[in-house]
Parts: sequence; structure tokens; C-alpha cells
Amino acid sequence: MSGWFITLEGIDGSGKSTQAKLLYERLLACGIAALLTREPGGTVVGQALRKLCLNGGETLTWETEMLLMAADRAQHVQEVIRPALEQGCCVICDRYIDSTVAYQGYGAQASLAAIRQVNMIATQGLEPHLTLLFDIKPTERYVRQGEVDRIEKRSLEYHQRVYEGFMQIARENERVVVIPAKRKTPAEVAAMVWQACVTKLPHLDRSAELN
Amino acid sequence: MSGWFITLEGIDGSGKSTQAKLLYERLLACGIAALLTREPGGTVVGQALRKLCLNGGETLTWETEMLLMAADRAQHVQEVIRPALEQGCCVICDRYIDSTVAYQGYGAQASLAAIRQVNMIATQGLEPHLTLLFDIKPTERYVRQGEVDRIEKRSLEYHQRVYEGFMQIARENERVVVIPAKRKTPAEVAAMVWQACVTKLPHLDRSAELN
Repeated sequence: MSGWFITLEGIDGSGKSTQAKLLYERLLACGIAALLTREPGGTVVGQALRKLCLNGGETLTWETEMLLMAADRAQHVQEVIRPALEQGCCVICDRYIDSTVAYQGYGAQASLAAIRQVNMIATQGLEPHLTLLFDIKPTERYVRQGEVDRIEKRSLEYHQRVYEGFMQIARENERVVVIPAKRKTPAEVAAMVWQACVTKLPHLDRSAELN
Repeated sequence: MSGWFITLEGIDGSGKSTQAKLLYERLLACGIAALLTREPGGTVVGQALRKLCLNGGETLTWETEMLLMAADRAQHVQEVIRPALEQGCCVICDRYIDSTVAYQGYGAQASLAAIRQVNMIATQGLEPHLTLLFDIKPTERYVRQGEVDRIEKRSLEYHQRVYEGFMQIARENERVVVIPAKRKTPAEVAAMVWQACVTKLPHLDRSAELN
């Protein structure tokens, strides 16, 4: 595979979706082939699962939710991410395995080992080259109006555990760069994102300069 | 848990759904609390997944299909099977993990280890006390009219591998009793089923005699 796989992670309201779009546009402006996608919901299967997971009428067990997310991820990796990487595309993905580990493992206190095993199988071991983690604490995050779903309704303690989980993942994985996004404008955060990209993926910088 | 967990397995058209119903009715007639259920599709989540898996418009990867089945199973076990067993019910389930191993592992030649790992997590290790495997070869099976879905449309070689997979599972697991169902009437098969139940689960026989 010749493309770069970049994931964006963080709690809801950390600004990662905005930054994913800005990074995508910057890559295109530099003449670098790029693909912007997200989880859950990147495929037709994923969209059905997203609906089921976020607004499901019945109470899903954590195993069910984790397996549904992994099913979406399996389809997304094989249908979207791998083919794009094989064509040399830079794939920017809004959430990936780290979100499952943070939300379900640390947040909902499910088995980290089980989550990792299942996701290794789902993705056939596909790891990002770079993960941008937007560091915004639950008390500092931006809460969208009218978009409170089942997951967002959970307690502040839950979101605090999710936040700490993301930080733990950053400590354990060299691929993760923490972006201190608190009280920064989107343009300031985008500059830090670009800096992280060209530092971690120097080929990206050279491609940008060539174009 | 005090209830018995009985699963029925075999290729499509082996008569297992008919036998599941007959066994359920016999247990009820004996005054034994029983629950009849099936996979996939036992829960609201399962029904959505069943539709997605069997008639999905896009091509599902084997990992996606396996994870969807496992998600359904996780919900089914925790929402339906475990609570019934805890209440002392005899749970009769039309298909369970063995079907995934036979169809996806042996039939579609996916990783047996991955399937077993994922299903162990999905079910938290819940195994049947008894599995009735209906031995009908793919060339001998009853093919329903107008019910040919995505899985049933696959080749005879595929169904032959599924059949051999079921037989291998029977050799490896003491809980499995093979029912030679070829050229037998439903009543004859039901008699063999009952014999297997009371032999493997003697408490069942005593309960039946008491009632």
C-alpha cells in the first residue's frame, strides 16, 4: 500500500470533524490525492448500523454495540480505506479503532482485550500511520444543539473516562500526536495539524512542495 | 443457571426448524418450561441484521457478515437466552455458533480461529448443553420454493464444505449428537431427537416423568 492513513480522534465537540475537512481540502489544494471518510457510517451497511447504534429503540449490550461498530469497520476498511490506500490516496478518517477503545473500553469499562481482538480481526490489522488526537476536556467541549444522541446523553464521568482513555492511548502509541486544541481558532488548530502531518509523514511535505 | 440450552444445527432443508418446533411442543406437553428461538433474527436488532445479511444490496465481506452475526448473537444471548436459562427454562435455539463455524469457517473458508474468538466474546462463553445435528447431505436436502436467498444460492461445493464442517464439529465436541435424518418421517426424527435429549440430559426425562 502506498497511501497514508490518517485518523482523527477525540471526544465529541473537540473539533475533529472540522479539522478533518480542513486537512482534506489542504491536501487537495497541494495536489495530493485524498479521501475523507468517517466512522461509523462510511458504507451503506455502516449507515444502517449507525442508525441502529445511535438511536436504537432497545438497549444494546456493550458486546452488541462493539461488534456492530467492528462490522461497520470491517466493511469500511475493505470497501473504502484499503482500495484508496492501494491507489496511493491519503485517507483521512474521522474516528477509527481508538474511538471504540476509548468509548467502550475506557468509557463503558468493557474489556480492552476483547475490543482489541475483535478489531484486529475486523481490520485485518490495518493501523493508521498517524493519529491526530484533539485534546479538549469534556468540560471544555462544544455541545451541538439538537444533536444529543444516546451516547452523548451519558454522564460527565463517562465522558471524563473516555477523555482519559484517549490520553492513555496516546501514551501507548507512537503514531498518536496530541493536538492541544483548547481556546484555539480552527485556523490555529489546522496549522498544528499540518505541522504534525509533515513531521510524521515527511513524504507528504515533499509531495506538497512538488505540486 | 438452571435451564438446559439445546441448539439445533444442520444445512438448510435438513428439517431442523420443524424439529425445533416439535421438541418445543413436546417439552411444553410434559409441563417443562421451554422457550423456542432462532438465529439470526431473535431480537429487534437481529431482525434488522438478518435483512442486511441475507438480502444486502452490496457485497458484504466475510468479516462483516461474521461480526453482524456475532452482534445479533450477543444481543440474543443477553436479552433472550441467558434470562430464560436463569429462570430455569429449557431454551431451544434454531442455529447458534456452530452454524457460523460451518457456513463461514468451513463453507466460505474464513478463519476458524477468528470466528471462535469473536463468538467467545459475543456470548461470554455460553455453550449449549446439547446440540442436535441433523445429518442430511446437500444433495438430499429439501429446497424450499421461493426462498432462495443470497446464502442458499451458493454452489453445491460450498454446501458440501458446510456439511463436512458440521460433521467435523460433531467429531470435536461431545455435546453434539448426530441425528441420521435421511429418509425419515418428521415423527421418526422427533423420536430420535427426544431419545438424544433424555440420554444427554437425564434431568429432563425425570422432569417429564414428574409432570
